Parts: sequence; C-alpha cells; structure tokens
Amino acid sequence: MTAGNSSKAAVREVLDKALAEGRQALTGPEGKQVCDAYGIPAPAEGLATSVDDVATLVREIGTPVAMKIVSPDILHKTEAGGVIVGVDSEAAAKDAYETIVGNARKYDASAAITGVQVQQMVSGGHEVIIGAVTDPTFGKVVAFGLGGVLVEVLKDVTFRMAPLDHNEAKSMVDGIKAAEVLQGARGAEPADREALADVIQRVSALVTDFPEIGEFDLNPVFASADGARAADIRILLDSEGATERERPSEEEILGVMQRMMNPRSVAVVGASSEEGKIGNSVMKNLHNGGYAGEIYPINPKATEILGYQAYSSISDVPGDIDVAVFTVPAKFVAPAIAECGAKGVATAVLIPSGFAETGNVELQEEVVETAKQHGVRLLGPNIYGYYYTPQNLCATFCTPYDVRGGVALTSQSGGIGMAILGYSRTTKMGVSAIVGLGNKSDIDEDDLLTYFEQDDNTQAVAMHLEDLKDGKAFVETAKRMTKKKPVVVLKAGRTDLGARAASSHTGALAGDDKVYDDVLRQAGVIRAPGLSDMLDYARGLPLLPTPKGENVVIITGAGGSGVLLSDACVEAGLSLMDIPADLDTEFRKHIPPFGAAGNPVDITGGEPPSTYEATIRLGLEDPRIHALILGYWHTIVTPPMVFAEVTARVVNEARAKGIDKPVVASLAGDTEVEQASDYLFENRIVAYPYTTERPVAVLGAKYRWARSAGLL
Amino acid sequence: MTAGNSSKAAVREVLDKALAEGRQALTGPEGKQVCDAYGIPAPAEGLATSVDDVATLVREIGTPVAMKIVSPDILHKTEAGGVIVGVDSEAAAKDAYETIVGNARKYDASAAITGVQVQQMVSGGHEVIIGAVTDPTFGKVVAFGLGGVLVEVLKDVTFRMAPLDHNEAKSMVDGIKAAEVLQGARGAEPADREALADVIQRVSALVTDFPEIGEFDLNPVFASADGARAADIRILLDSEGATERERPSEEEILGVMQRMMNPRSVAVVGASSEEGKIGNSVMKNLHNGGYAGEIYPINPKATEILGYQAYSSISDVPGDIDVAVFTVPAKFVAPAIAECGAKGVATAVLIPSGFAETGNVELQEEVVETAKQHGVRLLGPNIYGYYYTPQNLCATFCTPYDVRGGVALTSQSGGIGMAILGYSRTTKMGVSAIVGLGNKSDIDEDDLLTYFEQDDNTQAVAMHLEDLKDGKAFVETAKRMTKKKPVVVLKAGRTDLGARAASSHTGALAGDDKVYDDVLRQAGVIRAPGLSDMLDYARGLPLLPTPKGENVVIITGAGGSGVLLSDACVEAGLSLMDIPADLDTEFRKHIPPFGAAGNPVDITGGEPPSTYEATIRLGLEDPRIHALILGYWHTIVTPPMVFAEVTARVVNEARAKGIDKPVVASLAGDTEVEQASDYLFENRIVAYPYTTERPVAVLGAKYRWARSAGLL
Repeated sequence: MTAGNSSKAAVREVLDKALAEGRQALTGPEGKQVCDAYGIPAPAEGLATSVDDVATLVREIGTPVAMKIVSPDILHKTEAGGVIVGVDSEAAAKDAYETIVGNARKYDASAAITGVQVQQMVSGGHEVIIGAVTDPTFGKVVAFGLGGVLVEVLKDVTFRMAPLDHNEAKSMVDGIKAAEVLQGARGAEPADREALADVIQRVSALVTDFPEIGEFDLNPVFASADGARAADIRILLDSEGATERERPSEEEILGVMQRMMNPRSVAVVGASSEEGKIGNSVMKNLHNGGYAGEIYPINPKATEILGYQAYSSISDVPGDIDVAVFTVPAKFVAPAIAECGAKGVATAVLIPSGFAETGNVELQEEVVETAKQHGVRLLGPNIYGYYYTPQNLCATFCTPYDVRGGVALTSQSGGIGMAILGYSRTTKMGVSAIVGLGNKSDIDEDDLLTYFEQDDNTQAVAMHLEDLKDGKAFVETAKRMTKKKPVVVLKAGRTDLGARAASSHTGALAGDDKVYDDVLRQAGVIRAPGLSDMLDYARGLPLLPTPKGENVVIITGAGGSGVLLSDACVEAGLSLMDIPADLDTEFRKHIPPFGAAGNPVDITGGEPPSTYEATIRLGLEDPRIHALILGYWHTIVTPPMVFAEVTARVVNEARAKGIDKPVVASLAGDTEVEQASDYLFENRIVAYPYTTERPVAVLGAKYRWARSAGLL
Repeated sequence: MTAGNSSKAAVREVLDKALAEGRQALTGPEGKQVCDAYGIPAPAEGLATSVDDVATLVREIGTPVAMKIVSPDILHKTEAGGVIVGVDSEAAAKDAYETIVGNARKYDASAAITGVQVQQMVSGGHEVIIGAVTDPTFGKVVAFGLGGVLVEVLKDVTFRMAPLDHNEAKSMVDGIKAAEVLQGARGAEPADREALADVIQRVSALVTDFPEIGEFDLNPVFASADGARAADIRILLDSEGATERERPSEEEILGVMQRMMNPRSVAVVGASSEEGKIGNSVMKNLHNGGYAGEIYPINPKATEILGYQAYSSISDVPGDIDVAVFTVPAKFVAPAIAECGAKGVATAVLIPSGFAETGNVELQEEVVETAKQHGVRLLGPNIYGYYYTPQNLCATFCTPYDVRGGVALTSQSGGIGMAILGYSRTTKMGVSAIVGLGNKSDIDEDDLLTYFEQDDNTQAVAMHLEDLKDGKAFVETAKRMTKKKPVVVLKAGRTDLGARAASSHTGALAGDDKVYDDVLRQAGVIRAPGLSDMLDYARGLPLLPTPKGENVVIITGAGGSGVLLSDACVEAGLSLMDIPADLDTEFRKHIPPFGAAGNPVDITGGEPPSTYEATIRLGLEDPRIHALILGYWHTIVTPPMVFAEVTARVVNEARAKGIDKPVVASLAGDTEVEQASDYLFENRIVAYPYTTERPVAVLGAKYRWARSAGLL
C-alpha cells in the first residue's frame, strides 16, 4: 500500500513542525493527525477550551471518554490532577472539564492552559501491540504481538522488515505463538485479522515513507471481530534519520563476481618460493588445484616462482588481471590496491589480518577508501581465501579441494571455514564454492548471493555469518534468490551471551536475535540452529529434489526407529501422510501380517531385501506420496550394503522413469552401516548411521525452503 | 505433609456416601468438605433454608457472594434461574434468596428444594489452576498452570507425580514458562508462591490418600500476595481406583540382577552348531567374547556344540544355572520356563520374537504366568540379548563387544540396540552393559537401575524407552539413583505423532509427553532430545568429572567458534563466567594485545601451542573456574595433533595434582581434527570435530544432572 501525496504532506507538516521545535516526541493530537493521514485507526479526540466544546465533542465521540489537560507547562498530567478517565456522560464530562482546569490552576497558577483533550476510550476484544523501530541491521522493522503482562514475559512478538505486503502482514498476525487466541480459540472472541494486517501494513508504509520516525507504538490496539482500533499512540522522532548505504547495481555486482569466480588470470601479490609462507601456499594451491588460467606471481625479489614468471609489481604484468590475491602484510596492502585499480583488477582478495579485527580500523578504512577510489572490489581482509571448483580455483592458503557439487558455502570466520573444509573432505561433499568473508570490508553475502543466484553450478547456498553489514540488501537479494534455490544461514551470536561475544570479536553490533530470526524467515532463508546442522543441510539439500507435496511416508524395518523417525518428523515440521485404505492394502501385501501398515509402514526386522525393495518401490511409484524416510535395521537377512544397493537401484530405476522424490534414510546397525550410508549419499539419498534425527532434519529443511518459495 | 486420621475419616465419609449413591461427581458442599479436611482453601459457603439463614451467612462470609439453588431435581441451575452472582449486601442477598426459590418453583413446581447455597466470591490476583489426574503410567499426577485462554493456548502447565514434597511443589510454581508473572514481573502483583506450593502439596496428599479421586480441579485459584484461594472445586471419582503393581523387594531384585549380570553359568536353550542359527550365534558370542563361566548348550539332538558338552534339557545339566538364554521359537518357551524354575534359574533371557509384538498376547501372558509360578524372572521377549563387559559376557546373537567403560545402555527396540552397538564400536565407547528390553514382559528399567545404582563398573546409564510399565517404580528408583549417577533417557514417542506410532508398534499406551517430560525431570533424569544426543551423552558423561560450580570459561583460537560456543552454552543452560579483573589480567599475559580476554577468551588464530597450553593451564588452576570449553582452529603453527597432545598433557598434569575439571573441545579444521578428537576422548576430554554444539551439549547434560542431584 502506498500513501497519496496529500497524506504524505500532512505527515510532513507535523514532523517538520516538531523537528523545528526541537521536539523528539509528538503530542497526542499530532500522533492522531499522523495516524489519520495514513488511515491508522486512532481513537477519536478533540481539544476543548470550554464546557460547550466538551459537550460537542462528547456528542461526536460518544462515551466513555478520557480527558487530559493540555499545557506546555504541565509535564506530569496525572500528578497535576489533569487526567480523568472513564467519563461516561455529557454532564460528567462538563464537570470533569472544570475539575481538570481547576486542578491544573491549583497545581501551577502560572501554567499556560491550552485546553483539555477529550479522547474516545477504546476497549473490548484482544489487546495487541503494533509498532515499528529502526533496527541497526535491517532499518525499519515492524513488530506485532499480544499485549499484557503475560506476553511481555513470554516474549511472544514477531518482526518483519518494512515495507511489507498484505501477506507478510498477515503472516505476522498468524505467526505469533498465541495466534490461536486471535482466531477465537477456546471460546475467545475472534479478532478481525485482516483489519490487524491492514493496520500493520499502514504502519509499515508510514515508517518507510518517513525514516525520521524512529519509534512508533500503537499500544494497546483493541482487536475485536469488528476491527482494530488503537487506544494509544506514541511517536518518537530520530532527527538523524537513517543513511542508505551506497550500493553498486546488480549488473555491476554480477560483472565483478563473474570475473572473481571465473578469472582468466590471477595475480598473487607477495608470492613466494619459500615453504611455509602464505604466498607460497597460495601459489601451490592455485597450481596443484588445476586452475587453467594465467597465474602471475608478484614479488620484486623473484624472477620465477614455482615455474611461473614473477613480476615486481601488478603494473608490470603484461596481460589483464581479474583477481589479485594479497598475501603481503597489512601495511603493504593500500599502495598495491591503487596499482590494482590502474591495472583494471576486478577484485582484490585480502588474506592478511591486522585490520579492524585487531583494532586497526584506520588501516582498513584507508584500504577501503583507496579501493573505492580505484574501482577495485575487496574480499576480506582477514580470510583464508576462496574456492570455486568449476574453475579448479583454490585461491587460498589452505589445502586444495576439488569435489564438485551443488552447494556454495561462505563463512565470516576462518575457523568455521576450516570446519567447512574438513567436513567437506571427510564426507566428500560436492561444493561449487567456499568463500571466506572475514571482515567484510566490501564484498559481502548479498554480492555472493547475486552471483550464486544465476550460477548454474550452484543449487544451494550455506552461509555462516555473525552480522550483516547491510541487512536490507541481504533481504532483498535473498528474497529473490530463495524463490529459486535454498539458502541456509547459520547466524552466530544467536543469544544475548553469543551476541556479546560477537561484538567483542568483530566490533559489529550484533542485532537482536529475534529480529534476525523473523527477518531471515521473511527472506525465505532456512536458519540452521547450529554448525552441525548447517553442514548437514549444505551436504544434503542440493541432492534432494524438490518435493511436490506434503505427504511424507516412513518405511522402516525397525519399529523403534519408526517411532523416533515420527518424533523427528514433528520436530522438523513434516506431515506424516494419512495413508488411504487402498494404499494401505497395497503395503500390506508386502509385509508380514504382524507388521504395521499405516504410517510408519513397519515391515518388521526379519525381512529380506525384497520386502524393502517392494515397499520402497510402492512408495516411489504412488503419486500421492511425496517423500520417503527409510529406517533400516541391520540383520543377517538384509545386511547394510545389500539394503543400500537395493535402495539405490530402486530409487534410480524410478528416476529413470521420471519419478524423483526426496528419499532420506536412517541406518541402525553395526559399523557397516557407515559404508552403506556413504553409498546411499553417492546415489543422492541423504543417509546417516546411528541417528534418526539428522536425515529427517535435512528433509525438513528442504520442505521449509520449498514452502517459503511457494513451491508446495 | 500428611493428613491426620480425622481428616481422612471426614473425606472417607464423603466419598463413601457418593460412591454408595452411585455418583461420580461430588456436589459443591461435598467438595468444600473434602477441601476443608485437607486444609485446601476453598471459598466459604453455607446452605440457607430461610432468609434469616441468608443474613447470618452473609454476615459470616462477607460480600460479594454467589447464590445457587440446591435441589436434587434441578440439574441445570442457571437455566432454572437458580444462580445469582455478585450479590453485594445482606439486603440484596435476602432478595436473591426469594428470587432464586421463586424461579425454581416456577421452573419445576414438583422439585424438592434443599435450600440455597451462599458462597463467597473470590477474586483478585492471578488466576491459576491446580489439579490432579490419574496418569496411566505414573498414577496420581498433580498439575499447576496459569489460568486464562492464553495459557490454555500456550499450554503453559507443569506436572509432577504425587506425592510430592514442598520443594517439588515450589518447583512447579516456579517451573512454568510464565513463572515471572507470579513473581511480580512488569509491575504485576506478586503472588504468595509459598501458599500456592502449600495448596499443591495438600492436593497431592489428598489424591495420594484417596486413589478413588480420579480427577481433581481447583479452577480458578486466585493467587494474590495474601495467599491462594480456590474459587471453584470439581472432584470426580473413579470407582475402579488404581491397582498397584506387585513388585519384588529391592533385595530380591538385586539378588536376581547380580546373578544375571555376573552368572557363574549360562545355559543356551536351543544352542546349535549350525551356522546362521541364532542358537549358534549366541554360543559363539559367549565363547568368543571370553566369558569365563560355565556354558551349557541345551539341545536334545546334540551331544556337543562348539566344544561344549550339550544337554537335552535344562534339568539334565549337572551344575547350577544362573541364566538361561532362549533361542528357540516362541511356542517352545513356556514349557522350558517351567523347567528353569525347577532348576533354580534366576533369569530367562528370551531372544525369540512372536509374542505380544506380533499380536500374540496370550502366548506372552502364558509365559509370564509360568515364570511367575516358577520364580523365574524374564528378560524380553523379542530382544537381541545383553552384554556385560566386566564379565566378558555377550549373551546375544549380535557380534561381541568388549570395550569396557562406565556407561550402561538399555534399549526397548532391537534397531536402537544395533545403533548403540555400531556407535559404540565406531567411537570405541567404553560400556559396562548393553541390555535389550524388548517387550518388557517382566524385567524393566527399574530392575536394571537398581542393579546399576550399586554397580561400581557403571558410572552412568542411558536408556531408550517407548513406555514405562510401572512409572512409579521407575521414578522411585531413578530418584535415588540420579543422586549418585547420571541417568539419560531417550523417550521415544515424544510427540502426538510419535506416540501414535509407539502404540501401533508395541501396543503400549504411550503417555502424554508433557507428563513424561516433567516427571522424568522430577526423577532427576536427563532427557535426550534424540538418538544422537543420547549416544553422545552416554559416551561423554562417564568421562567428565562432576563440576564443582557454575563458572564455565571458553578458551578459543577461533573467534568465530567462540561466538558459536557461547550460543551453544546458552542453549545448554550453561553460565559463562564473568571473569574477575585479576584473572582477566592473567589471561591477557598470554594472548596477543588484539586478542579478547573476557569470556570467551579469544587467544586468536595464529598462536603457537604454548599459548593454548598457558591459557588452558590457567583455566584449570584457577579455583574460581569450574569447567573449560576449548575451541581449536587448525593452523600450521599449531596442527591438530599438537593441540591434542598439549591439551591432554596439561589436563593430565592438573589431574595428577588433584585438579579434575570437566574439559570439552570443539575442533575446527581439516580432517586431521578427527584423529585429534579421538586422542582427546582417550584422555577423558569430550571432543568433536566440525561442531560447536555437540561437546557443549554433553557438558550441559553433565551440569543438568549435577544440579538436579544437588551437587552444585
């Protein structure tokens, strides 16, 4: 929704006046004017300067009313006897007027009395809160929650980044934990949720149009079946307003990212022949990783490094340079960046530390400023570098990695980057990219998302982050991206304690986690609860096809696993299909009479491979089933690798016929189940030994993404 | 608290009268009598049969009062115009009396009118609910929650098994999510929580003394700063009462368990020389596992099996038999059980399936009956058997396992048993026992806990269970046990969906999960959220010493890991120590100037082994620190195995000096961190690669146990 020019002008006038008078808080009548301009239902009210005015107003507004002294000289109205609430007749209102004015005079004989505000008293229905604040990360953020002490204690409130559309506003009303209350649970009066969503959307429009509104509170709003009406308005101005970050266009970002990920040439500033030096490790990794473009070692003291001709400076290199990887100490970076600019280098990859993370903020700012002046984009500083497997590119001082696959991973921290690398290697996870972001002095998550969105080598993205430099840009990019490909985010500093640690580490002001949580969901991002989960999702998501519906079926050889898998399904937000009678009959044909059909389908433990085969095939071929969870139990009759081979064969046969459903498996058994799990993974079946939770969590993440992308 | 004989007699009289009249519901006055007898604060009330009575009662009770017709012939009092509430003066009460009696006569001229109940109207403070129900698993269970639609929707209610002491009752009042509200959060009136706990305890005593009270509701109870007063009472009788399960004494249980775990001799009923038969596998495992006692194969068709002399029946065996492992088909079990009884066998281990789990309930009941008659206890049926490593005893058809250690594991399901075995083998987890419980026709978790409690080979217990046959016995045993050793429970069927699956699998009526959750906590049990967690806790808990206080310190080489470890601490309920200034100074001596002391102590990534060593030593030697979490980051300067060796050495040196604190570690790096983690585990340091959550979760579990055992 957008406000007309006259609405905007009306608000502008109110705000300008208040700002001109140096006031941060709007008065009650001003708040009312602002709300009226944007169609936000505020209580009717007016200013009375005589008992006759009072009578007129009460006839207009109806009873009950609240009456309050209006005087620039009386700040504490209640103390001055200047507030009377619950006035329920014209006569009583006239009396109240006299009383209030009399009290005010007694309280301060010299006070200038503007009059008495007569305000409609709103009540009935549910008390809710609708508000907006300026979040350091995401800018204008609207909030919705139920009012009252209980909910304040239970913190049942939800946030979205503004501006938002009606569906997003509706998702707030339906997204709080106690949403059922507003839907009329347990005999409560149902609220008009459309009306609430409408108010939220109007508040969102208002604060978007007027960034100088720092805080906006409607508290309480009375929500009944008839509509929603605010009983009190509080508007605080933030004269500084919000500054929008300067951002390159999408085309510019893509141009740079294309050259960074697919460089025709890479220079290594500080390349070295000396074993153990970072400039040596990077050279070796570029070479050993199999990168096919030009490699230019830059070192004034060398003529040749690892068989490549060395140059004393960037400007001496004869050809074009797409990427310059810096391995020199921090203090030598800025001058070389200027040279990069002259040479037309797209991206400088700053491995060195010794910048903002060690308190050397000035040096980092100098480098950033230099880069901006010379049109060079920066990755880092304080990073391990980056990998892009489709180009065999290992621009890093860590060891090479070459297993190609569909997931791109990024990390803000080097330690987490190393964990990604180790996990990738041990699980043979196929990756397209691993990128260190470090201090994020320039290139950040939204630049990378912009590239991965259109990169056919990447089917999913997993990002570890501690903060977002530009939350709005991230959300905009992620919203678009997540419609096509899943994005997993591990947001570190989830908790107050964590956030404190984040700020001591990066100097970044870690946002309030609840805001992050809600806004990331608004962006369609799958949030991983921990590092293990992020890695599991990264490994599994690109392998699983997108499910076509919500019907999940568990087929298990171990009844005990079936129960735990069911638990895990609820935990992961998956819906166990209610198996129709005819399908139940079909399953029963394959399982022993004491096995349980229904869901889980319990084929029982002693069954041969043919029972697994028949039931899995049925699960794949029946179009009403959309995803399968397998529970395997190690027996002599069906050993682990036999199960794995049968399962992979049946799944692959179905795929050959065009049936590709997500299949995940939990393997319970002796250590041979580890090899069996690996084999299943190689066949695009997400399988883990000794756990019922992990495979189901990955399927749950795929479903969360598919739902938010509107694919289900 | 216990009620006196006269109180009991008063209640007995009321209940007997109602039961004699065939009523399930007590009347209002009866409810009042019951409450009065147990000191449960019910509203004052009395029966008026004249306007004079009314006047007297109102003077006694005070206003306002509620007045209700009392007539055995009028069921729908409100419909009959027989209820007037909010009567606020003596005069109004007299009028109300006439009105009510008049209305009743108009409504049903033939109705016998006993009189009019005049009841104190209670209000003010917070509305809470106190109640009791009969749970199928735990028997009498008391409930406490906040009243109102919101809490009904948010399901903020807590349960405990009755009877309970004052501390347990207090833990209910303080244990609901919205507990702060009762403590006076955000300007709310604080409630008298002692008074609430007192009411809970009295309700607990009442339902314990009178099992025939099936449901008991005080709803609402008004809890204010002055006390707690019920406004309405509802008591429903369950004429069937509850039947207590017959249970052997602790000495009897221990006697049998001692013989089962440390048998001098084991007979294998159905032993076989034929490869692939269960009776052959069990023989091999007993032999190859290294069991040193007598092994008696029972097989009428053999003279010798695997070098052991075979006997045609149990009765033919010359020596005593402690354990008879059954590997014959289900139908042959019962007769052989009788023989076992005659022979004095302590326990029959029933591997065969084909009993209740396949619907063959009668056969199982027959076996149980036979066993009871002949004084033989049963393990199973439908199990893989059991292991007890201190005796090299592998009485199972699975493969042998011999890594001795401090944890005993049990599983209700064979599949989960196999997962336990595989996980144990791959992690070299030291175990004392692995026991299959299967259908739990006789021996169950509390029998095993009774043994493990006094077993010096067992330092911790981890149990997978789908139901409890006797919740009371379990809680009693676990309460005692968990004061000494941690007990981890993975309760499958956590969710409605899961519970449905449980009941289709075992025929067991899975209890409501919220009741399980609260009562398990009441028993001091650590509940594992999933199978992976149970296995991690089982592996780690026996290795970690009991912490002596709440001060946890993170020492990390990777700032990024530090943030995630902090998050994990909050998740696990751990408290990051506020580092005192002098200690901060000490830490700073060892770390680079840009490293962050505070907590996490961030030693930064490029540091040599000596920095890890110095900071870890400081963390161990300062008595104000109680536990350490280490975050390792793989670098060339401090490779994984170097970190592992340094850490193990420092920790072992401290142990040699009598300082033994829990130390856990998260290792971020390339695959060498896997070997380093294993090495740390061998040195009693709980360490995992590629995850920040798992090591912290294990430490959190240790703390949860230590707190509930009163050790902190």
